[in-house]
Amino acid sequence: MERAKHIGIIGLGLMGSSLALKLKKIGYVSHVYGYDHSAETVQEALNLQIIDEGCALKELIEKADLIIIAIPVDAIKQLLPKVLNLVDKTQVVMDLGSTKEGIAKQVFSHKNRKNYVACHPIAGTENNGPSAAFSSLFQDKVNIICDREQSSKYALEKALEVVSIAGMRPKYMTSKEHDRHIAFVSHLSHISSFTLGQTVLEVEEDEESIFDMAGSGFASTVRLAKSSPDMWAPIFVENADNILEVLDAYIKNLENYKSMIRKADSTLLNQTMKKANKIRKVLDSNAQ
Amino acid sequence: MERAKHIGIIGLGLMGSSLALKLKKIGYVSHVYGYDHSAETVQEALNLQIIDEGCALKELIEKADLIIIAIPVDAIKQLLPKVLNLVDKTQVVMDLGSTKEGIAKQVFSHKNRKNYVACHPIAGTENNGPSAAFSSLFQDKVNIICDREQSSKYALEKALEVVSIAGMRPKYMTSKEHDRHIAFVSHLSHISSFTLGQTVLEVEEDEESIFDMAGSGFASTVRLAKSSPDMWAPIFVENADNILEVLDAYIKNLENYKSMIRKADSTLLNQTMKKANKIRKVLDSNAQ
Repeated sequence: MERAKHIGIIGLGLMGSSLALKLKKIGYVSHVYGYDHSAETVQEALNLQIIDEGCALKELIEKADLIIIAIPVDAIKQLLPKVLNLVDKTQVVMDLGSTKEGIAKQVFSHKNRKNYVACHPIAGTENNGPSAAFSSLFQDKVNIICDREQSSKYALEKALEVVSIAGMRPKYMTSKEHDRHIAFVSHLSHISSFTLGQTVLEVEEDEESIFDMAGSGFASTVRLAKSSPDMWAPIFVENADNILEVLDAYIKNLENYKSMIRKADSTLLNQTMKKANKIRKVLDSNAQ
Repeated sequence: MERAKHIGIIGLGLMGSSLALKLKKIGYVSHVYGYDHSAETVQEALNLQIIDEGCALKELIEKADLIIIAIPVDAIKQLLPKVLNLVDKTQVVMDLGSTKEGIAKQVFSHKNRKNYVACHPIAGTENNGPSAAFSSLFQDKVNIICDREQSSKYALEKALEVVSIAGMRPKYMTSKEHDRHIAFVSHLSHISSFTLGQTVLEVEEDEESIFDMAGSGFASTVRLAKSSPDMWAPIFVENADNILEVLDAYIKNLENYKSMIRKADSTLLNQTMKKANKIRKVLDSNAQ
């Protein structure tokens, strides 16, 4: 495995910072350049020794052998073509965005498309910024690589090195499949959780404090409502078509609960919940 | 603190078994009688030394100084009046049901209403049965006591002993207030989670396996979908009016997400999520 001498991380949030930490820890890189639109974040990443040097975007693109883009998905769409304009044939570009189809379309016919590998590591927490980063974030997780036939063999090899070093196993699909499936298993969870938090906060505004009546089940279900709006608003907009379909299916099932409850149909409620109980097997086998 | 010599647990699920374990561990009781409608569960509780003796319901009610009813809420409604028919003035009856108003109405004018203390420990896991029980389940949790003015001073004192020994702090309210507030902070979480599990399982039935694309966020949000249908169907039916209101508020907020996403209104999405982010402060201060 050839040592990648210089790496550039664009976006020093939880994902970019955690990956930098891991690649440094394992000795895969000799120098990490970091860029973030917030100077404060760059300073924080320097203080935490997540990056070795903060630098301007253009300088980072010039100097890094491997460029990792870890910014919100709308910003990736804007930036990726510009990055590809500037790279030479030895440079590899990866992104870590949570939607893939819009980005794929943006660079589909770019002359340097082959230098780019579309990645989505299925990892994260509800916390943000360099201070939330930790090197084991990606350990034993899945990294989805989309439209791999559009990346060069060299770029794909480099990306797979990073994926493997971070502790992840790769899974391949088209960007279209990715966006549809991730709407079900990630985007819906986030909206259901944000909305749960909102609904309970709204009633509390009008009434007395009720949160000391909330148990660990509530905490677990509402955890994702702590997630970053700056990251999630662009994801929801980018994946609108799939999310709207998934939300319709979810709301239909909620309406069905209303109907069963209104009719006091314990038997049907019981059967419906028993089916949902099958999620236990899935979660246990995933060892989440 | 007077030692309660004999305790009877009706219902040897997670809650009843965990409470028995704790009261035994601390030496508060000398003998635990147990009843469950499943003979297998009684045997399991005996094997795990959760109870000292399995016995018939009538015998348990005769022999126990303190009777704890830990069965589904529809069954509590049926059983509680019968238990109160049989107790003498020295016996105290508690229940651990997750809804309170329907039960309260059932025994409101019972001659032995004062022997009964309506309790709801805000504790639990998604696992069921004696094998899931552990003595610290209630540690640092809240126990809601409803309509306390309808319990005798003696019964209330006994119940508060149990609450305190289990590690909980009491909170008082009417059964009506209880059912309204708990619909927001507990019943809604359970329905949102059951429905999330259902929605994702339904799409997976038609398509390929997508669960290796699910991360820890999904696991957290869907955890409650593992909960017991036998326990939850009666809760949803019992608390129908409040739950229907809460589900309407929740669905309204989901529809609002659909509208914001359809319009690609990132700004409003961002603002709406920022408001929901306030849940972080609540959860942190609750130290869930």
